[in-house]
Amino acid sequence: MWSVGPGWQQWSTSECRGAGVNTESQLKADLSLLYILYILRGTEPHTRLHSSPHWETRTVTCERARMSFPPPPPSPPPPSAPPASSSSNHLNNLAPKSKTKKKHFVQQKVKVFRAGDPVVSVLMWGVNHTITELIQVPVPVMLLPDNFKACAKIKVCNHLFNKENLPGQFKFKEYCPQVFRNLREHFGIDDQDFRVSLTRSPPVREEGHLLTSHDHTLVVKEVSSEEVEEMHSILSEYHQHIVTCYGSTLLPQFLAMYRVTVESEDTYLLVMRNVFSHRLHVHKKYDLKGSLVSREASFKEKDKELPTYKDMDFRNKMQKVYVGEEEKEKILDKLNRDTEFLARMKLMDYSLLLGIHDVEQAEQEEEEDEEDEEEELYHEDEDDDDENGLPPAPGSTSPQGIAGYMNSFKPMGPGEFDPYVDVYAVQSSVGAPRREVYFMGLIDVLTQYDTKKKAAHAAKAVKHGAGAEISTVHPEQYAKRFREFTAKIFA
Amino acid sequence: MWSVGPGWQQWSTSECRGAGVNTESQLKADLSLLYILYILRGTEPHTRLHSSPHWETRTVTCERARMSFPPPPPSPPPPSAPPASSSSNHLNNLAPKSKTKKKHFVQQKVKVFRAGDPVVSVLMWGVNHTITELIQVPVPVMLLPDNFKACAKIKVCNHLFNKENLPGQFKFKEYCPQVFRNLREHFGIDDQDFRVSLTRSPPVREEGHLLTSHDHTLVVKEVSSEEVEEMHSILSEYHQHIVTCYGSTLLPQFLAMYRVTVESEDTYLLVMRNVFSHRLHVHKKYDLKGSLVSREASFKEKDKELPTYKDMDFRNKMQKVYVGEEEKEKILDKLNRDTEFLARMKLMDYSLLLGIHDVEQAEQEEEEDEEDEEEELYHEDEDDDDENGLPPAPGSTSPQGIAGYMNSFKPMGPGEFDPYVDVYAVQSSVGAPRREVYFMGLIDVLTQYDTKKKAAHAAKAVKHGAGAEISTVHPEQYAKRFREFTAKIFA
Repeated sequence: MWSVGPGWQQWSTSECRGAGVNTESQLKADLSLLYILYILRGTEPHTRLHSSPHWETRTVTCERARMSFPPPPPSPPPPSAPPASSSSNHLNNLAPKSKTKKKHFVQQKVKVFRAGDPVVSVLMWGVNHTITELIQVPVPVMLLPDNFKACAKIKVCNHLFNKENLPGQFKFKEYCPQVFRNLREHFGIDDQDFRVSLTRSPPVREEGHLLTSHDHTLVVKEVSSEEVEEMHSILSEYHQHIVTCYGSTLLPQFLAMYRVTVESEDTYLLVMRNVFSHRLHVHKKYDLKGSLVSREASFKEKDKELPTYKDMDFRNKMQKVYVGEEEKEKILDKLNRDTEFLARMKLMDYSLLLGIHDVEQAEQEEEEDEEDEEEELYHEDEDDDDENGLPPAPGSTSPQGIAGYMNSFKPMGPGEFDPYVDVYAVQSSVGAPRREVYFMGLIDVLTQYDTKKKAAHAAKAVKHGAGAEISTVHPEQYAKRFREFTAKIFA
Repeated sequence: MWSVGPGWQQWSTSECRGAGVNTESQLKADLSLLYILYILRGTEPHTRLHSSPHWETRTVTCERARMSFPPPPPSPPPPSAPPASSSSNHLNNLAPKSKTKKKHFVQQKVKVFRAGDPVVSVLMWGVNHTITELIQVPVPVMLLPDNFKACAKIKVCNHLFNKENLPGQFKFKEYCPQVFRNLREHFGIDDQDFRVSLTRSPPVREEGHLLTSHDHTLVVKEVSSEEVEEMHSILSEYHQHIVTCYGSTLLPQFLAMYRVTVESEDTYLLVMRNVFSHRLHVHKKYDLKGSLVSREASFKEKDKELPTYKDMDFRNKMQKVYVGEEEKEKILDKLNRDTEFLARMKLMDYSLLLGIHDVEQAEQEEEEDEEDEEEELYHEDEDDDDENGLPPAPGSTSPQGIAGYMNSFKPMGPGEFDPYVDVYAVQSSVGAPRREVYFMGLIDVLTQYDTKKKAAHAAKAVKHGAGAEISTVHPEQYAKRFREFTAKIFA
């Protein structure tokens, strides 16, 4: 039981615009060939011949039909849509800043969909399609080995139809649909929210083969066919690990894996939960591997608005993570279980992604932004008759995306978060020098210690000597060194 | 804005059952290989580590997720599901009989879907898919020549997934999606109602390459690839004809055309509105061509419960159609326009399908059936806790199929019908010898006067002499003879 939300209508509207332009240009070219077949849309068939007590009902039916297809031309795009930026190279840093007062909690405007990126359009189409299909497929009593080898492939070929929204030909493949549905359930993600988070507005392309969902709750990583293979080889054990730890893990939350084929080119996409917050801005970011060799951010990287610092930078900056003893134990427990699992899978070269939200800095930024936002809010008010600008009704049962239901609650205070959405977040302890929120998760876990790694290992050992600290070691060694390093990041 | 109705859940339920059986047999075979990965469905991830003010909301979300996937094992199938019969060779005669009192208006039980007929399963899948896709495609300002050449093709290949409901591999093609959407609108058929009528329960196979939708409002005819070609060649003119006459016609209401491919075999399907009523039983049926040569029902045909009589039988039985002068004029006006159109398209060999509902006979039958039905009603009451057995809520906005909304109104009296659903129905005049309702429409209109026909014409002329009344003549002659004959069927 679900209904299509306002975002779909937004999509339709943009498609309308595309169609309008297309029709106009075709009109000029083909005018002499044109059959003038006006669609007499306002004319109800038979009304001229009969009258009936059911007239009222028929009108309602037709109105409903008309609502589904908004008539062109549509309203102009929102005037203050923020331009897509890409200043993070690992995970998204575009989350809207936290607001303390309700009147400042500006909901991000839904961006108008443009089919400029065919892979993204097909991804959105495919997510919609596969989730809709899954509703009709029963949940198995238990997952069987076959479910871990399953896939659903679909090939679409539209001739002179729907060219505005999608490539004329494309393929979409979903890997292990039942397994990932089960994983989503274990991670507390409703399938309809998952669908809405990925499709209400198009995911935004970031640096480094990454996309972030418009609501910043999910990341979509472009992976290699080898990584897809690797995922298949570990999926059963990964699933068991997640079941055993009740979904409480620092590992990536693998939520879906797809292959998109446009113009004979395959793109493999892995959907995961965002390690960072969908609303708390990250002010400092580290990618830590537990090795000091070649582990320092480049000058170019350090010049960025939000650089990705590495192990050496962490040590040089005397950075520490200030959490309570109990929290620290919990994190290290998870880390032990997770790295043991990764070593058993012969996986290595993963990183601990650490994001730091500075609560006071966020408050200061908010005050600085206040004037701009008040102006923005003024423009928002002007657009309030636009359905997409309206906040969702409190208690609404239509899916609002993974973080969507939060909009119907009172806004959170500075540094507050919902542990069911920001599952990787930990608050700094009471005695910490600064009020901070930390986001910690393992990333890039799909590299296996294979022949290629062995070669790299040999090369590095020659260069730095057999005893040097190098980041390419055996999976067991890697996990041990990683754990030892991580235990020392805490104050 | 639409929501998936209870029928979908019914479908899911039957799929659940299929999966359950499958799982059970696989279990026995593969037990030694089995990974015992219990799905801990009741366990909410993270609940053991955190507590949160948002707990209540998360519970709601999970409940919603669970509602979409009814847990196996499902309830048993309805005990009194009527067996699929096939006693009509042209159009459906299985419509539920009319009821005069509300307590006797027994809503037909939704049949449990079985994927026994792969073509029907793929048809249902395809109708669902294409209507869902169409919502996202804007209605063009006007139809262009390209829309009449367009098609949407989709190929599905499921590996170890969803085998219970659908063939592992199949293709579905929709012809001219924008044109047929526009035609449906002109015929007053909402796309969501169209979808529900074809997919809430599987269409039933009749004799002679015909399927009838479960609610008896639509027929799906299996046609040849030549007829698909013919349809393409006339579609633009047909569309113009429908626009010009405001949908008021005796021609078939062409609503969609598809190709279903299962195991490399193509099946072409044409969806039309049922000429007969979805609820008034037809007691006598004629297929009239306006020729007397070889136009008599065979002895075998006459032995059937509802034989299809022909021109000779019509004359021998002194059958007449008793309608008022005004109604007769309307019918003949439509017939003139329609046969002129068909002759212009070089089409011939079509028939006037005439169904006669005898109001008094229906009342008598109803009284006879009363006892049986009261018992049936008793069983229905027992099942009332089953969601699918419940009648739709009055004023419900979720689509109920083409005739669905009628269920929320008071039942009609004997011989009454809704002219927006039974568009081919005409009541007998006040002075008629019997109270009757006539259903009249043109069928089998896609035969063109081509070389094959010319050959048949030559052969018949040799056999019966050049002056004999034969049914294979030129399209213009055919139309003229057809009109002359039809003018004489009225009293």
